[in-house]
Amino acid sequence: MVIVMKKGAHREAVAKVIGVVEKAGLVPHVVIGEDKTIIGVIGDKTRLVDVPLVVFDGVEKVLQIAVGYKRVSREFTGGTHAVQVGGITIGDGSVVVMAGPCAVESMEQLMQSAWAVKKGGAQFLRGGAFKPRTSPYSFKGLEEAGLEMLSEARKETGLKVVTEVMDVENVDLVCKHSDMLQIGTRNMQNFHLLKAVGRTNKPVLLKRGLAATIDEWLNAAEYIAAEGNREIVLCERGIRTFETYTRNTLDLSAIVATKTLSNLPIIVDPSHGTGIRNMVKPMSLAAVAAGADGLMIEVHPNPENALSDGPQSLNPEEFDDLMRDVTKIAAFRRESLEERLQPCER
Amino acid sequence: MVIVMKKGAHREAVAKVIGVVEKAGLVPHVVIGEDKTIIGVIGDKTRLVDVPLVVFDGVEKVLQIAVGYKRVSREFTGGTHAVQVGGITIGDGSVVVMAGPCAVESMEQLMQSAWAVKKGGAQFLRGGAFKPRTSPYSFKGLEEAGLEMLSEARKETGLKVVTEVMDVENVDLVCKHSDMLQIGTRNMQNFHLLKAVGRTNKPVLLKRGLAATIDEWLNAAEYIAAEGNREIVLCERGIRTFETYTRNTLDLSAIVATKTLSNLPIIVDPSHGTGIRNMVKPMSLAAVAAGADGLMIEVHPNPENALSDGPQSLNPEEFDDLMRDVTKIAAFRRESLEERLQPCER
Amino acid sequence: MVIVMKKGAHREAVAKVIGVVEKAGLVPHVVIGEDKTIIGVIGDKTRLVDVPLVVFDGVEKVLQIAVGYKRVSREFTGGTHAVQVGGITIGDGSVVVMAGPCAVESMEQLMQSAWAVKKGGAQFLRGGAFKPRTSPYSFKGLEEAGLEMLSEARKETGLKVVTEVMDVENVDLVCKHSDMLQIGTRNMQNFHLLKAVGRTNKPVLLKRGLAATIDEWLNAAEYIAAEGNREIVLCERGIRTFETYTRNTLDLSAIVATKTLSNLPIIVDPSHGTGIRNMVKPMSLAAVAAGADGLMIEVHPNPENALSDGPQSLNPEEFDDLMRDVTKIAAFRRESLEERLQPCER
Amino acid sequence: MVIVMKKGAHREAVAKVIGVVEKAGLVPHVVIGEDKTIIGVIGDKTRLVDVPLVVFDGVEKVLQIAVGYKRVSREFTGGTHAVQVGGITIGDGSVVVMAGPCAVESMEQLMQSAWAVKKGGAQFLRGGAFKPRTSPYSFKGLEEAGLEMLSEARKETGLKVVTEVMDVENVDLVCKHSDMLQIGTRNMQNFHLLKAVGRTNKPVLLKRGLAATIDEWLNAAEYIAAEGNREIVLCERGIRTFETYTRNTLDLSAIVATKTLSNLPIIVDPSHGTGIRNMVKPMSLAAVAAGADGLMIEVHPNPENALSDGPQSLNPEEFDDLMRDVTKIAAFRRESLEERLQPCER
Repeated sequence: MVIVMKKGAHREAVAKVIGVVEKAGLVPHVVIGEDKTIIGVIGDKTRLVDVPLVVFDGVEKVLQIAVGYKRVSREFTGGTHAVQVGGITIGDGSVVVMAGPCAVESMEQLMQSAWAVKKGGAQFLRGGAFKPRTSPYSFKGLEEAGLEMLSEARKETGLKVVTEVMDVENVDLVCKHSDMLQIGTRNMQNFHLLKAVGRTNKPVLLKRGLAATIDEWLNAAEYIAAEGNREIVLCERGIRTFETYTRNTLDLSAIVATKTLSNLPIIVDPSHGTGIRNMVKPMSLAAVAAGADGLMIEVHPNPENALSDGPQSLNPEEFDDLMRDVTKIAAFRRESLEERLQPCER
Repeated sequence: MVIVMKKGAHREAVAKVIGVVEKAGLVPHVVIGEDKTIIGVIGDKTRLVDVPLVVFDGVEKVLQIAVGYKRVSREFTGGTHAVQVGGITIGDGSVVVMAGPCAVESMEQLMQSAWAVKKGGAQFLRGGAFKPRTSPYSFKGLEEAGLEMLSEARKETGLKVVTEVMDVENVDLVCKHSDMLQIGTRNMQNFHLLKAVGRTNKPVLLKRGLAATIDEWLNAAEYIAAEGNREIVLCERGIRTFETYTRNTLDLSAIVATKTLSNLPIIVDPSHGTGIRNMVKPMSLAAVAAGADGLMIEVHPNPENALSDGPQSLNPEEFDDLMRDVTKIAAFRRESLEERLQPCER
Repeated sequence: MVIVMKKGAHREAVAKVIGVVEKAGLVPHVVIGEDKTIIGVIGDKTRLVDVPLVVFDGVEKVLQIAVGYKRVSREFTGGTHAVQVGGITIGDGSVVVMAGPCAVESMEQLMQSAWAVKKGGAQFLRGGAFKPRTSPYSFKGLEEAGLEMLSEARKETGLKVVTEVMDVENVDLVCKHSDMLQIGTRNMQNFHLLKAVGRTNKPVLLKRGLAATIDEWLNAAEYIAAEGNREIVLCERGIRTFETYTRNTLDLSAIVATKTLSNLPIIVDPSHGTGIRNMVKPMSLAAVAAGADGLMIEVHPNPENALSDGPQSLNPEEFDDLMRDVTKIAAFRRESLEERLQPCER
Repeated sequence: MVIVMKKGAHREAVAKVIGVVEKAGLVPHVVIGEDKTIIGVIGDKTRLVDVPLVVFDGVEKVLQIAVGYKRVSREFTGGTHAVQVGGITIGDGSVVVMAGPCAVESMEQLMQSAWAVKKGGAQFLRGGAFKPRTSPYSFKGLEEAGLEMLSEARKETGLKVVTEVMDVENVDLVCKHSDMLQIGTRNMQNFHLLKAVGRTNKPVLLKRGLAATIDEWLNAAEYIAAEGNREIVLCERGIRTFETYTRNTLDLSAIVATKTLSNLPIIVDPSHGTGIRNMVKPMSLAAVAAGADGLMIEVHPNPENALSDGPQSLNPEEFDDLMRDVTKIAAFRRESLEERLQPCER
């Protein structure tokens, strides 16, 4: 932490800040310049986390130089922590694919989707039983009945199931019917929910909040890790910007950023990230080329009839086509780009 | 709703879309132009809400012309619905002030704050017992003990209490100790929580999500209203933009926008909206001049020792100074600007 | 400047950075912590402005603690520099109003506008002879003929004229026909143009770029000042955000921010800042309440026939109504809020 | 265009709007619904471009359904228009690489860069002789001397030269020394400059404005095309968002978007798009995988000494490494992904 004093700050003001730093058990290093004085503080910054230094007389600003997360930090923990989900590994250099409908609508729709994505080569079935929707009048999912269908599809196809949990009270129920818990974009800072999934032993897929900085996202992961659950995979799904052509702006640089800053694997969801069906394949290939550990793709047996997010769903033929090229680019990456999978440094 | 067909869309494609519209019980109006065909659909658009028309062959795009919310819509319900909170009216043209510390830290700190804001002229005491914080290692509030202190402060001072509820399981508890439930910015689309407070009979203060559009915000209010609770007040608290000088960008045009589109009162929180102590007063005056129904201000007896958000808290003297001018500008507004308080139209 | 070394950076890497700093004639102050080393550099940072320290081995990041502008900085120059434009003072605590049509369309339209805004109480006539437009097929202004009409209107009404100059080659021509040169939002970083107006002795109205940070905006002003022209007034006109209801998001906190950081007066343009006619009055009042030194308002004798920006133009009656309340709130501010007009500190 | 009338709009208001549409020589189609009336207008919307319909009594909003650009529109002109630059084709499915230093600093630095990028496989040498810089005190380029060095480097190496032109008066000079004119991000809406390059016969590289929508970007290209110059290549270089970890957010979905909407080739600049050296390679591969027609990469013989943008420059070894993988992924794309290069439809 670096505390910058205002030009002309009084000697007493500087002394007071030094006192606060020392009282917190940290060592201040004072640098007196021509115009300004700065005070460097190196050490466990959590001891000062709740002291509003910027309010003190004579303080101009406080610059943070350490990140707020430790358990998910690459600097503190070393390389990527690959996550195991029932025999599937995410984060070992391979490309894991999670696919299926936005929402579980019926047993028939789900089984058609499940067999289609399995045939295409996906390892996970995705599908929402609880659906967060902007309008209270939109379809909200089949809830427990949907979860039971997911369980059934898992049993029949052998696919792993990843599905969203939206509230604390349903965490146990969703755990029972799934292999991996998804935290949706709107809940990235639902801290009670993060802590609740952090107390389970299920792997967690943590989507980026729609206007979350990378720092906030990794702090959200830290909430889960701090409760003891270290099996966390990030999912970039587009951020909110001024551009309105796409539903969101898919930020593929987040792949490199999170691999530089954290030890967490990251997958990419180009379906929500763009909201446009014909962008799903090119952005999937781009994500794999940039180093993503996996993809999450919306596939619906009949997108015209989808009850949610039809505009961005692929049909099974489109998914097969996508997977053919994803497989090739993943092989290319494995063979040619091995060096790129090593820790990046800024 | 207007469905725009692609240039050169086939006759069959147009017919198929018409069929879907008619099947939903709506009447399509087809307009054939030189280049393109468009299909106007006027009626209850909720019947088509889950049909992904944009996926159909030949469809270029679908433009919405109606809003998704009804119960909170000005168009459908008429003028502002003033909200009563234990004898205080929000939305009748007066300026209601909610003030107090960001977080309840101790009985002493809370009582000092409470008497200070009462003396300054506030009607509500604000203060968080549950605090959402980016880092899992920051102070999270005193929880139930904090709520009990708020109850006690209410009893002693006669101030109304508004405080945040962060999760469904604590809704009853927070109801017991407060006069108004606050939904924080990170929970604006925590739909389970919205529905839970919608089933209480407590007035709700709904903060705008940090990257929420006005449309999403009003849909969030509609979630509460749809459960039966119509006592809703909006709170603008800054949105996330590219500018980093301020913590957020306070969007005062939201006052006029929400008054144009909805029947809800709106207050403004310049403390979180700017994150900078010396901006609180000028932005408070601006908010009142623009027509806000109230203000939410962070006041701490000793901002240097605040455990949360000290940088933006006023001390009691600063709050008194602010209130003197707020009172004058509110009087000026009442006398001179009566015409501006009538429903705005875009 | 603070240079943060990576955890575990080699001794040689630190030595190399120290060497570069010393070679630039600056004094490095090294602070060695448990995990990291930081190097504080206090002095004239322009000596290091073109050294990419972040590329050096072992450097994690470089934090700037000084701003890049000097001539327009409050810290370096003291209080607000009021700008004189032909007898009108901007920045002395009063509220100066610039009003008129978006574009000059005809002598008749201009004279009707001019007399209307003079009657309402404006001191300046605004009106574009050169109009930047997104589409090449939109009306671009009457160019030199428009400037001559502005000259004529100035002569007849006594109003000062402020009008946009879009390119270097027309600077002399626009100087001839106006009292103040406007730099439009799209040209805020047209550095050749900034330098060209910096070499004139006309006061300059510098609009904020549509996605410009306050730091970039003040650096743009510094370009003008560095050429010798210190008569600069800022104009906040809305920034680009994710919100689409308004054309832009008017950032009134920029009033306080620029007054804290710079010595420049600032006016507000709520017409472009919102793009919605019924928001112009409330946002004007808010701007004045927040401390703006003036307003720029679009007024058209017949908005339905305006060739540019009709949707946000007031008619003369609406302008009169706005001015009545602006006058009152300006008087209120002068009497009651004198303390707020003093330099703000963050 | 679809004009949406307010609920309860008077019959006369509807009639007036119909009259305006008819007067413009267009045919209105009126659709009367239960709540609202809408008026569809299909035809040459440029006839109504300057009529502010939204100001008319009873009009709620106006929705555009046609784009404002014609000459660069895919819908109106068919497939991608490949651009020839002295024997190099951009937009034929291959990957063209433009590389070199941010700024031309000296003959020696330029020649080292030129031979290095030629050896790596680039077809173009990039390098700025005129540099737009946020601060007036940063290095601004060698100007004409820099252009002459570029000419010399072109002669010696046979590389094509692309360099930025920042103002109208230097267009001829830059034409003389280069093969392709670059319009920088800050000048994307410098309309005089766009028109000036539109009147040359040099191919133009049009960078996206830092907060420009895709629609505005294509309208900027239309400005150039409208003057007669159809040899235009787009360059995505990152947009401004709330995220501060990267200098900009590189929007790779813009590749698909512009190929869907326009006939223009598009290249990607990951150096400016991220601002971080270690992101350049993964984002380059991602751009090629997503269908980019080329790349623009900053390469400096010694990034530590670069006078501009050192933090994001590759050294020659890093560039060679990048090119090895770019070549492979380009071959993979050519062989495997041919179908993806065909016109995309939304």
